[in-house]
Amino acid sequence: MAQASITDLYPSRVTDMPSITERQDPALWCDLNAPPPGPLTREQLAAFERDGFLFLPDVFTPDEVERFRMELSRMANDSELRGKEETVLEEDGEMVRSIFRIHRLSDVFRKLAKDPRVADAARQVLGSDVYIHQSRINLKKPLYGKGFFWHSDFETWHVEDGMPRPRAVSASVALTENNEFNGPVMVIPGSHKRFVACVGETPDDYYKQSLRKQEAGTPDLESMQTLVAESSIQAPKGAPGGVLFFECNMMHGSTENLSPFPRSNAFFVFNSVENTLAEPFSGKEPRPEFAGERDFTPVGDL
Amino acid sequence: MAQASITDLYPSRVTDMPSITERQDPALWCDLNAPPPGPLTREQLAAFERDGFLFLPDVFTPDEVERFRMELSRMANDSELRGKEETVLEEDGEMVRSIFRIHRLSDVFRKLAKDPRVADAARQVLGSDVYIHQSRINLKKPLYGKGFFWHSDFETWHVEDGMPRPRAVSASVALTENNEFNGPVMVIPGSHKRFVACVGETPDDYYKQSLRKQEAGTPDLESMQTLVAESSIQAPKGAPGGVLFFECNMMHGSTENLSPFPRSNAFFVFNSVENTLAEPFSGKEPRPEFAGERDFTPVGDL
Repeated sequence: MAQASITDLYPSRVTDMPSITERQDPALWCDLNAPPPGPLTREQLAAFERDGFLFLPDVFTPDEVERFRMELSRMANDSELRGKEETVLEEDGEMVRSIFRIHRLSDVFRKLAKDPRVADAARQVLGSDVYIHQSRINLKKPLYGKGFFWHSDFETWHVEDGMPRPRAVSASVALTENNEFNGPVMVIPGSHKRFVACVGETPDDYYKQSLRKQEAGTPDLESMQTLVAESSIQAPKGAPGGVLFFECNMMHGSTENLSPFPRSNAFFVFNSVENTLAEPFSGKEPRPEFAGERDFTPVGDL
Repeated sequence: MAQASITDLYPSRVTDMPSITERQDPALWCDLNAPPPGPLTREQLAAFERDGFLFLPDVFTPDEVERFRMELSRMANDSELRGKEETVLEEDGEMVRSIFRIHRLSDVFRKLAKDPRVADAARQVLGSDVYIHQSRINLKKPLYGKGFFWHSDFETWHVEDGMPRPRAVSASVALTENNEFNGPVMVIPGSHKRFVACVGETPDDYYKQSLRKQEAGTPDLESMQTLVAESSIQAPKGAPGGVLFFECNMMHGSTENLSPFPRSNAFFVFNSVENTLAEPFSGKEPRPEFAGERDFTPVGDL
């Protein structure tokens, strides 16, 4: 599966030595002096460029959020769906950790993916039309929902899915409150401008394990200390209906949810239609489509 | 090992149904109108009675903390100590999670246990002289240090050690900063006035597992929702040198440390000399002395 035609600008999992290198690409793909039309202001686009994320409270109304939550509840209790590979369980093999491909499995979430409040924002940031590379809901069950170790999504998507460049953005729509105690997403502002090459080889069919608990493709301690020393850790928090946009190469993670109430967010990954997938840079088989979509239909046409 | 002579006022792990009952004992054992001499003011004692905890910043100076940290570093790297049962490893079997009995293993920590800033405060709260029921350092390694699930210490000490009544207080001395991102202790104010009876039996030699990851003696989801709905979750944070005092029946827990810097606290559990251990209420063998001391020498005489 190796590809001679594309130079690997972001090699990772190829040596035993971790390294931090500079990003080779823009972090914002539109012209700030003439930004494309959309919900984000020039100031917001500049903040996204600088920090790698942008948190907007109250993007969706309580009624809209209620509809999303009912749909989530329906899906989480759908026994047929539970048997599909789109449903990823916690390591205990019982609790649902994530449901993938929600933009294909659900009309409600397909409409949410196309909503201009997220899709037009993604078009602005990426300076092009966009398609959905991945979508999912992460459910962090009360008391027992596990976290997600630090990672750059782009590192995974590049190595395991063949995404050529970091020209994708995630929108995380809060379906519940995200607070200090339920495992909110933690970000390192500015880390999207650095690329942390990870050590270790990618096992075959690694997604079957990594979607429960990631090990390959995770940064080393020294790199993490460097990134945080250069910047800080932040955890954007807020009421249901808020949206966290974050650049695909931003280092992020989250802890377990030890609160006795659930935490869930719906994620939509918008990739530029000018950045569609090649073969995985690991040389392995690509992950299945629920984890890395290979149908590049623009989101507006879904 | 069952004891006919003492009525079990706080039965736990005896039925399949969890329950929440009222505390049968005072939460503060001194007279607020004539408190014993010591570092805590009447207002602080009243806050402790009401909330079940009291956080005091800057109790120890940076120089003192530096001495504690050097001693911790020495102990954590002592290969002989690592082989002793006082050292509890993480589930991976490699990283040190806790070192127990530090008031016996180390002169520095013996002196800290006797320091009036903690010991006199404990004497005030408990209205009597005190001895050390347990001491330890919890090290939460950067990125990989695991958390502690919600629990009432008294539930464990009562069932597994035979502590008759909740007349003990812990002092957690911060050796590093405790912040939002490194797994600070989380408390539920007021929860010390309720007793959550847990389900399930206590396995033989349970401490060998529970000190790494507790399962028996942990509260159920519904009880936790009740406690939090009645109150809130709080996480006292601050610089090294601060002390968190908390009542032995207060529900508390902490998440993993996903930050790339260590978090460590030294814990000293002061029990009233009028509340020394009986046989465990589980009917099992008591835990070893490093987990539940059976030498009731007042701390001042150590």
